[in-house]
Amino acid sequence: MAKKTTRVRSVRDQPVSAAFLVGPDFDPAGVDPAATPVGPSSKAEAAEDLVGVGERLDALQEAFYAEGLGGGRRSVLLVLQGLDTSGKGGTIRHVAGLVNPQGLRIASFKKPTPAERRHHFLWRIHKQLPEPGYIGVFDRSHYEDVLVPKVDGLVPAAQLRTRYREINEFERELADGGTKIVKCFLHISPERQKERLVARLENPVKRWKYDPGDLAVRAKFSRYQQAYREALTRCSTSTAPWYAIPSDRKWYRNWAVARLLLEALGDLGPEYPEPSYDPEVELARLREDDPLR
Amino acid sequence: MAKKTTRVRSVRDQPVSAAFLVGPDFDPAGVDPAATPVGPSSKAEAAEDLVGVGERLDALQEAFYAEGLGGGRRSVLLVLQGLDTSGKGGTIRHVAGLVNPQGLRIASFKKPTPAERRHHFLWRIHKQLPEPGYIGVFDRSHYEDVLVPKVDGLVPAAQLRTRYREINEFERELADGGTKIVKCFLHISPERQKERLVARLENPVKRWKYDPGDLAVRAKFSRYQQAYREALTRCSTSTAPWYAIPSDRKWYRNWAVARLLLEALGDLGPEYPEPSYDPEVELARLREDDPLR
Repeated sequence: MAKKTTRVRSVRDQPVSAAFLVGPDFDPAGVDPAATPVGPSSKAEAAEDLVGVGERLDALQEAFYAEGLGGGRRSVLLVLQGLDTSGKGGTIRHVAGLVNPQGLRIASFKKPTPAERRHHFLWRIHKQLPEPGYIGVFDRSHYEDVLVPKVDGLVPAAQLRTRYREINEFERELADGGTKIVKCFLHISPERQKERLVARLENPVKRWKYDPGDLAVRAKFSRYQQAYREALTRCSTSTAPWYAIPSDRKWYRNWAVARLLLEALGDLGPEYPEPSYDPEVELARLREDDPLR
Repeated sequence: MAKKTTRVRSVRDQPVSAAFLVGPDFDPAGVDPAATPVGPSSKAEAAEDLVGVGERLDALQEAFYAEGLGGGRRSVLLVLQGLDTSGKGGTIRHVAGLVNPQGLRIASFKKPTPAERRHHFLWRIHKQLPEPGYIGVFDRSHYEDVLVPKVDGLVPAAQLRTRYREINEFERELADGGTKIVKCFLHISPERQKERLVARLENPVKRWKYDPGDLAVRAKFSRYQQAYREALTRCSTSTAPWYAIPSDRKWYRNWAVARLLLEALGDLGPEYPEPSYDPEVELARLREDDPLR
């Protein structure tokens, strides 16, 4: 009898969704933003893996898009949150850029306008949800409405708790309606943030990304970390989990988010819709009754 | 005295915008959809050129996006029209896919819904116009509202003429408002359309792209050619020109549209906005008064 062999999966091989899942004890202060615990350990390895990831993402997304057109109800929502320079824009460029732009719905949420403020904080979010078959990408999100008020003490604690509950209910409804939600916290160190702010100021073609107000926000770095800890631990649910992505290394951040998206689409297992016609009949029509013959 | 040398630019080197511009005498029936009159003459050459085109497009688009965020008012609108299988979707995948998806606004116009029908035909178009700094891509457009009625005799000739005028006025207003309009007619032959329809039916992962109604439209191929001739010649203006892109070869079509887009963005010459702050002051703040020091 042949010996039974078991391939030992190393920790490096575990899914990104398992490695970076935010659990009840999560604290950004205790997580190294430069860590690369799973997957590639160099930029070159990451680039090599991303080629295959891109091909699979592209194929899955095409099926997903077709499924949506064919009457499917499922969609994907990728939420990106993180402090200035954490790389929300770069992630969109490099990860969302791997798939057909026709199947993407990208929405940026800036400081709410006066008109938006007159509505419930989820009002503007609802308007940007992806349609079936689409991958929605949120550059900031409804989480701004718990993070900023918490840091700046704008709303009482009881109202914050109400918002956490409303967010969980909202995301539960989305999931029930067929939306796969993937929330990524792009986690960077204050040192890396400083480097990137300096780089923005030194490079004339990057100056448009800098705002003098960024330093006032930077002064609250640790309060934001605490606000993220509270929001993420309260709102990382089985239907809408949060992932904390080490983002001090851009190549690792891009790789990890691309992998997460691939795992999410793979779990969904999109399927091309059954045609509502008989392909053989149509082929015969085209070959024999071609109107232009 | 040195001899004056004149570099003779071959016809192959002329801009795509000059080669494919639709003039008053344009007639699709007289244009070879398999021609490759300018630029690369093979798929490999096109692929090689596209690398550089992609890099330049990406750089120009970033500046354009920054310009828009900085208060600029300009936008780009790429309109794609063509019969079934002419490659509107493929062009979006391969050309729009060259730039950062965050700076794109892609809109598809299908058969108008009952709600849309109750409005003027330009109503739904207005709602999808790109904001400043964005590249809008229309997969079909307001031209459906002159092409289909013309082919199917749905509206009297006088009303069609009114629509052409309204389109020209609308596009003139857009241009006056800062929108660079690039309209592409993806021109294919009936033979190539048949091949692509057969391919869609034979390949299970392409069947979702086929609709039995496609054959009824195919039966009107030459009437559509005539409708395109009328619409394009009436609505190819200096502010919003039409280009007829030979689209029997996918690689040539993608190359030509990418080049057109590059020429359009290059003409605009987007500029990074001047910062509203003093970079030196901010650098000093960050280096000396860093709130996290």
